[in-house]
Amino acid sequence: MNEQSNDKQVIYNGRVIHVELHEVTLANGNRAKRELVRHPGAVAVVPLEPDGQVVLVEQFRFAAGRVLLEIPAGTLEAGEDPDQCAERELREETGLRPGRLDKLGGIYVAPGYTTEFIHLYLARELTPDPLAMDADEDIHVVRLPLAAALAKIDAGEIIDGKTVSALLRVARRLGV
Amino acid sequence: MNEQSNDKQVIYNGRVIHVELHEVTLANGNRAKRELVRHPGAVAVVPLEPDGQVVLVEQFRFAAGRVLLEIPAGTLEAGEDPDQCAERELREETGLRPGRLDKLGGIYVAPGYTTEFIHLYLARELTPDPLAMDADEDIHVVRLPLAAALAKIDAGEIIDGKTVSALLRVARRLGV
Repeated sequence: MNEQSNDKQVIYNGRVIHVELHEVTLANGNRAKRELVRHPGAVAVVPLEPDGQVVLVEQFRFAAGRVLLEIPAGTLEAGEDPDQCAERELREETGLRPGRLDKLGGIYVAPGYTTEFIHLYLARELTPDPLAMDADEDIHVVRLPLAAALAKIDAGEIIDGKTVSALLRVARRLGV
Repeated sequence: MNEQSNDKQVIYNGRVIHVELHEVTLANGNRAKRELVRHPGAVAVVPLEPDGQVVLVEQFRFAAGRVLLEIPAGTLEAGEDPDQCAERELREETGLRPGRLDKLGGIYVAPGYTTEFIHLYLARELTPDPLAMDADEDIHVVRLPLAAALAKIDAGEIIDGKTVSALLRVARRLGV
């Protein structure tokens, strides 16, 4: 199975996303159009305190039109190592530096149209060490027990995809 | 917390996605640009057989540049009810009609830039009743025990975000 791009039209080069329209040939020989959002990729981190609390962030999401409760996350800068990005974003959004950062693999958020892949992490041994935040971010830190965060997933109160994926993976890993 | 759009520029009106650039005012008074992908939303379904096998689909994903193993899913048509879309996509992609369809809430896949919300379902009491597939889809059905699918998540072999979220939510709900 494969798809070959025969031709592409560049539609938009933005600050974070780039949009292209490709004409592809499918493995079965059919031709199709593929609308593509190029994205640099991102990281997302489950910060877990020794007392079992997770450190989440609450922010208004323009695309969702509402406030969402999420794990700390951010977009990779050009050439940035995902592990370093994870530490940077965690310090910017929560003021915490991880002594231990375990990789949880990652996810394609919407492989039907965007290249974005999010590297997921579990961060522990957290110590205060803040970094200044981006000026266009307005984020509130929310601490709650991991079990309470999982209950919010079950209840439909945590509905950000990366947050659902990462918290449930951490729960399985830790046997919660 | 809120963001008001002061102005928008329409960049692209595609078949599935629409791209806009907004200038917004944040709750703290700062101004920022927001690149926005408008998407009609989607459904994704965990089809569970009585013997504990889940029915997955394998397809080449152009945006990921590789084959991904996913739960059946598809984009909402204009005005389409998500429950009906779930049944339609399941019949198209797996040839199965669900006798029972339980809602699992949903997820915003990437609320930093896309409006896409995926409605998640658990489908049971499956009976053969195929619908013709879209001509630009080339999909292989893969059955495996739910426990084996969960092991593939742990091992980083299932890396599609909606699939990770939905399978782990089903595992919690069923106590697997």
